[in-house]
Amino acid sequence: MPTTPDLSQSPLGVFDSGVGGLTVVRALRELLPQESIIYLGDTARVPYGSKSPDTIRRFSVEDTQFLINHGVKAVVVACNTATAHALPLLQSTFRVPVIGVIEPGVEATLADGQAERVGIIGTAGTIRSSAYQYALAMRRPGLQIHAAATPLLVPFIEEGWIDQPALKLVLSEYLDPLLEKGIDTLMLGCTHYPLLMPVLEKMLGKKVRLVDSASTCAAHTRLVLEQEGLLRRSQGQTTLDIYLTDLSEQAEAMARRFLGTQFGRVKKAAL
Amino acid sequence: MPTTPDLSQSPLGVFDSGVGGLTVVRALRELLPQESIIYLGDTARVPYGSKSPDTIRRFSVEDTQFLINHGVKAVVVACNTATAHALPLLQSTFRVPVIGVIEPGVEATLADGQAERVGIIGTAGTIRSSAYQYALAMRRPGLQIHAAATPLLVPFIEEGWIDQPALKLVLSEYLDPLLEKGIDTLMLGCTHYPLLMPVLEKMLGKKVRLVDSASTCAAHTRLVLEQEGLLRRSQGQTTLDIYLTDLSEQAEAMARRFLGTQFGRVKKAAL
Repeated sequence: MPTTPDLSQSPLGVFDSGVGGLTVVRALRELLPQESIIYLGDTARVPYGSKSPDTIRRFSVEDTQFLINHGVKAVVVACNTATAHALPLLQSTFRVPVIGVIEPGVEATLADGQAERVGIIGTAGTIRSSAYQYALAMRRPGLQIHAAATPLLVPFIEEGWIDQPALKLVLSEYLDPLLEKGIDTLMLGCTHYPLLMPVLEKMLGKKVRLVDSASTCAAHTRLVLEQEGLLRRSQGQTTLDIYLTDLSEQAEAMARRFLGTQFGRVKKAAL
Repeated sequence: MPTTPDLSQSPLGVFDSGVGGLTVVRALRELLPQESIIYLGDTARVPYGSKSPDTIRRFSVEDTQFLINHGVKAVVVACNTATAHALPLLQSTFRVPVIGVIEPGVEATLADGQAERVGIIGTAGTIRSSAYQYALAMRRPGLQIHAAATPLLVPFIEEGWIDQPALKLVLSEYLDPLLEKGIDTLMLGCTHYPLLMPVLEKMLGKKVRLVDSASTCAAHTRLVLEQEGLLRRSQGQTTLDIYLTDLSEQAEAMARRFLGTQFGRVKKAAL
């Protein structure tokens, strides 16, 4: 009789449209330091946020299949747009647990029962999908929800223009209408946005609670691995393998910024 | 004996990474109203400007093959990044004339012999390729050339934020170092940028001559078609077929803005 392989020893798979999802990897490594991770960034076809649901679903299935071919025990969709459009499809198509970034953020927003007026910012694709709006309204009928597509933020973050006056003007243009509605919570619905935390905290002060995708997703991933008996118990060496579908110095430099640390050679994935 | 088909009756093919290349189509239709056009925008994989030369070449070959499969008599590469990295490969791979956007702009810049200090702006990929810098230096040794990658301009244009104060700040940040060098000419090395003409003219006044890719490319295309005996002589009805690899309302709305007019149903291209 063949023995069942111990899946808990397998790596965790994470994918994103680009390198922004490395903020989730960073949060995962802090919370789950005993896990090995395989990351796929679809830098050849980035961004997903401005593309149609059909195309996003097709890309997401290919990304997930790539990770499964590399033997992962679970898949984290570290991309809000892919989560919004493709999560149910991925969960019904593949047998490993598939974890998105939206539900965890929604749970964290509602956890303490204080939120009354919630703002959400994200790419055009994420906001248009209404995935956040729907998930919040399902759990808390009557909650005031104000969503805004903020497509210029990713380009600014990727350009590294975090302290520029122009970014502050862009943020004001996007956020003022939400602040006028009196939001008490702002959900950062894009895995790039944790890099804006310092500037947002300065702009918004203590009045508005910030909920980011990356750390809430990592906490939820730990829970799912625990429930499925997939948490790695051994304290042996771990690995982080980063695959990108397009390699460039620019993407690697950005990856270091999102991950917050150095890493080994990036490998090219042919999708 | 089979007769040679009259290729001059065939449509002209134009491709770009997205819908920005429709500024070239607009200029072509003004200059060559008797020509039919097939346009391919690779909106599923846009943008090319931040991707690696290998990936840009692979995409460009696929785009050109698509147009050739649709029976075009010549191909216009309405994308500076694709021209910079893939034009020689496309010209040696395919038998129809393949026309880029860079040479025509360089010719136009140098035509009157007045340019002494030339600025160039474009995507990261275009500027890093040095294609403009090289073409200018080859033709006019000793010319002062100052190039700047301006990756935030495309997102602003696509967001439709042409009159926003934030755009002016971004433009100043990018252009001030060029103006300090005393440039007398600014080459707009991206087919999106013609939409910035009004704001640039206001910012720069009469001191700096603006040279855009779109109109110079159209003029060059007419010349090539003439030389190759491919100009369509008949005055019959013409068609404009637009294919995109990803369809979305957003892309179609943007397409109308770049083309400056309405058009029929956009078709989906599977690449």
